[in-house]
Amino acid sequence: MPKVTIAQPILAANETTAQEIKQSLAARSLRALNIMSSPGAGKTTLLERTVERLRGRLGIGIIEGDIETTADAERVEAAGAETVQINTRGACHLEAHMVRDALQQLDLAGIGLLIIENIGNLVCPAAWKLGEDASVVVVSTTEGDDKPAKYPQMFAISQVMVINKLDLLPYVDYDLEKVKRQALAINPRLHIFELSCRTGEGLDAWCEWLVTFAQGKADGSSFPTMTTHHL
Amino acid sequence: MPKVTIAQPILAANETTAQEIKQSLAARSLRALNIMSSPGAGKTTLLERTVERLRGRLGIGIIEGDIETTADAERVEAAGAETVQINTRGACHLEAHMVRDALQQLDLAGIGLLIIENIGNLVCPAAWKLGEDASVVVVSTTEGDDKPAKYPQMFAISQVMVINKLDLLPYVDYDLEKVKRQALAINPRLHIFELSCRTGEGLDAWCEWLVTFAQGKADGSSFPTMTTHHL
Repeated sequence: MPKVTIAQPILAANETTAQEIKQSLAARSLRALNIMSSPGAGKTTLLERTVERLRGRLGIGIIEGDIETTADAERVEAAGAETVQINTRGACHLEAHMVRDALQQLDLAGIGLLIIENIGNLVCPAAWKLGEDASVVVVSTTEGDDKPAKYPQMFAISQVMVINKLDLLPYVDYDLEKVKRQALAINPRLHIFELSCRTGEGLDAWCEWLVTFAQGKADGSSFPTMTTHHL
Repeated sequence: MPKVTIAQPILAANETTAQEIKQSLAARSLRALNIMSSPGAGKTTLLERTVERLRGRLGIGIIEGDIETTADAERVEAAGAETVQINTRGACHLEAHMVRDALQQLDLAGIGLLIIENIGNLVCPAAWKLGEDASVVVVSTTEGDDKPAKYPQMFAISQVMVINKLDLLPYVDYDLEKVKRQALAINPRLHIFELSCRTGEGLDAWCEWLVTFAQGKADGSSFPTMTTHHL
């Protein structure tokens, strides 16, 4: 498979750019999250609700990755975020150079946290670092409870898993404990939030974590209680 | 982007292999479908219900594509399909050479239709032909009604769109007409099925179409009434 051979230098170059982004954000005491999921798991709605709840408390800058359309950027901008849209025109994931260029267009004054919403894709984005301090994978209760086992790489590289659409649990066959067990078997340090953007359930805990994360007090290594807490 | 330059010969080689597969299946009067969707849209459950309903009437062979696990193959095999599992171990889409190898292991005697279930990914599989006679994109009512506009390539290359999880419509904000309008704007010849694998609604029409398709009487060009029927 020549593709694999070729991909390594590209990934290495991406890693270098990602490191540069991370350092440049760190110099401004700004931390970044990379949010990933299947199409339709609810990333954009989660960001809308998050920005609304944290307005006046934490300024959020959002880089919106989409293959086409500016619809998501318009939604989070309306919610109150500083926003830049990246359209990849076919590409299945964001790469660090796209984020670097987008950052040139983002007014960072007043921003306390940078969130990058990746392309809806549970596979490819896992391989491309974007300069984030932590990665968040969003799953939803309507996707089936076998996703960690079937797409393990995404759960292995993430620090946080959000389980969204709790409000739909009564109407679907979804074993919440099974999903958490599968995910933690792949990545025992995964921090887990369960929430519903529709009812608001669980959003407070998520938003509090974001505030702490933005202040540099939370990262993947500072959740020692999670494996016991969630099983 | 060196990736794009490199990808062309690989895609061309894939196209050649896909043509060979198609011809070899045609020589046995066997037609093939390539089923694609986001993770969790319900491809495997649709195949389970389909195989059960058509048992004794149409023998179905299934090539199951997954990054990891054999869970899906076990499900459709239990439903009554001849099945081979492909595990891509990280790769985000099936390629024609994988299907060619899988076909070596599939007992085609008694099979009247071949179905290839692709990796759950609404982006990458669209670029890789597998020797199929038609492509089916499955969306579900819990994914948001903006998917055709945001992932247009998948809808442009498909002949059929299945809208699954109709039973969850009362609990989500999903504009069925908007989805159909968006999809048909991208691809006016798209044939559309609306169904629920949970209640069985719409499965009869889908299964009847499969039988006709397997007999070689249906393809992308033989649905002249669809754009008016569905709008």
